Amino acid sequence: MKRSERLVGMTNFFLENPRKLFSLPYFVKTYDAAKSSISEDIDIIDDMFRKMGIGHLDTVSGASGGVYYTPDYSEKNSNEAIEEMISILEDEKRVLPGGYVYMSDLLGDPKYVRLIGKIFASAFQDVPIDYIVTVATKGIPLAYAVAEVLNVPVVIIRRDPKVTEGSTVSINYVSGSSRKIQTMVLAKRSIQEGSNVLIVDDFMKAGGTIQGMTSLMQEFNVTVSGIGVLAEAEDEDEDRKIEDYVSLLKFVEVDERTKHIQVKKGNYFNSK
Amino acid sequence: MKRSERLVGMTNFFLENPRKLFSLPYFVKTYDAAKSSISEDIDIIDDMFRKMGIGHLDTVSGASGGVYYTPDYSEKNSNEAIEEMISILEDEKRVLPGGYVYMSDLLGDPKYVRLIGKIFASAFQDVPIDYIVTVATKGIPLAYAVAEVLNVPVVIIRRDPKVTEGSTVSINYVSGSSRKIQTMVLAKRSIQEGSNVLIVDDFMKAGGTIQGMTSLMQEFNVTVSGIGVLAEAEDEDEDRKIEDYVSLLKFVEVDERTKHIQVKKGNYFNSK
Repeated sequence: MKRSERLVGMTNFFLENPRKLFSLPYFVKTYDAAKSSISEDIDIIDDMFRKMGIGHLDTVSGASGGVYYTPDYSEKNSNEAIEEMISILEDEKRVLPGGYVYMSDLLGDPKYVRLIGKIFASAFQDVPIDYIVTVATKGIPLAYAVAEVLNVPVVIIRRDPKVTEGSTVSINYVSGSSRKIQTMVLAKRSIQEGSNVLIVDDFMKAGGTIQGMTSLMQEFNVTVSGIGVLAEAEDEDEDRKIEDYVSLLKFVEVDERTKHIQVKKGNYFNSK
Repeated sequence: MKRSERLVGMTNFFLENPRKLFSLPYFVKTYDAAKSSISEDIDIIDDMFRKMGIGHLDTVSGASGGVYYTPDYSEKNSNEAIEEMISILEDEKRVLPGGYVYMSDLLGDPKYVRLIGKIFASAFQDVPIDYIVTVATKGIPLAYAVAEVLNVPVVIIRRDPKVTEGSTVSINYVSGSSRKIQTMVLAKRSIQEGSNVLIVDDFMKAGGTIQGMTSLMQEFNVTVSGIGVLAEAEDEDEDRKIEDYVSLLKFVEVDERTKHIQVKKGNYFNSK
């Protein structure tokens, strides 16, 4: 096979299989090419991925070595994506009764969901993660978008048990902002003891839901190695229950009367 | 930029932007190359995408012309993917009390979810689709996987209204198998009148849930141009409410006592 064809094939292959090691002989066989040619292909792809700001190829030498694609969405790409989302969200038509902001359309657009996934995956790329954990409903697409890039499975906590889940573990917790008692349920067989998980959700105010998920993870003897929320809201009148998290957006002001919405970049961008 | 680099960049670009037309001058400018070179690049990528069974590039001539990527997951690829899923599902440990089958792990694996999305997108590639519609919870990852390939937004019907959705339309319907009255809710602003939608869900028995979604779509003056379910179950004792749908898997037998599960390919593969 010609180099030009191999480059198309291998680019697709790496994008489809992030963070997974493949030996050079695998590519030699698949594309019927010399090892030296494959090595050159890898250099070209690595170079171009870096230029595009979508990550890089890492080579491991030795008998059990090979190459793997590490997605890493560049600072420039991340900033552009989040600024575009902010300009979409700061539309006064989004203000709902009660001072909420309508964002279902943004969360329904695969383009933005994937961008969010890429940014979170880059934020947590050096943390050990075996599963992405979220709670139904709105966090689900975000969780899959991150999972796709980190190449790990998703586990969905439910609000109500379902017969198609088998036996479950459930906890009750107090929602931070509404002070109501709520329930979370997770199928026993859905997660392995001793794993590391990344919690992903769409929104955090006082942090009660995230704290509930953290407590449920303790029941499974699982370590929460990271917490990512798309948007956080200022929460003046109480102390936040969760301190260590990554946010991409921050709602600074939502005025129901004037319809004014002010959104800033979240804490992920503080150091950038 | 060199051809080798352009091929990596353009391959990534087409994969990220399916079914969207881009003019040749766009690529000429982005990659700083002659139009004839870009045309050759497109031929190479088109050729390799066809060889890999992941679709093809279509060229539109004329002033408003350009090129777009049509994902089309080949019969061979689709068959291999679905056969792998069948062998995973036919594991006796999956039988749950009540004769249900545990499939949350399969639906939690981004690899399989994306494969399912690719197959559905190919099945419905010639149908007009403005939105993918599903109902919480298990259909959500499948809906996004299809939406990603077809490059359209996702709309999620909920079981309960939420304050962050604004005003909603709701319907009550009778679940086919349990005969219980259930509710579906959808935010008014989530979908445009006169649109065409593809309904996607994980499982169908009598079809009551799908029928409920269809009724709700009528309230929005929206046309249901297709229905895709990952798995259907034989439903002996009643007439199915939905006739025209595409299924990828069919549960032929689930025996709670012997733990025997038999899964066949769904009707999508009948003609293949």
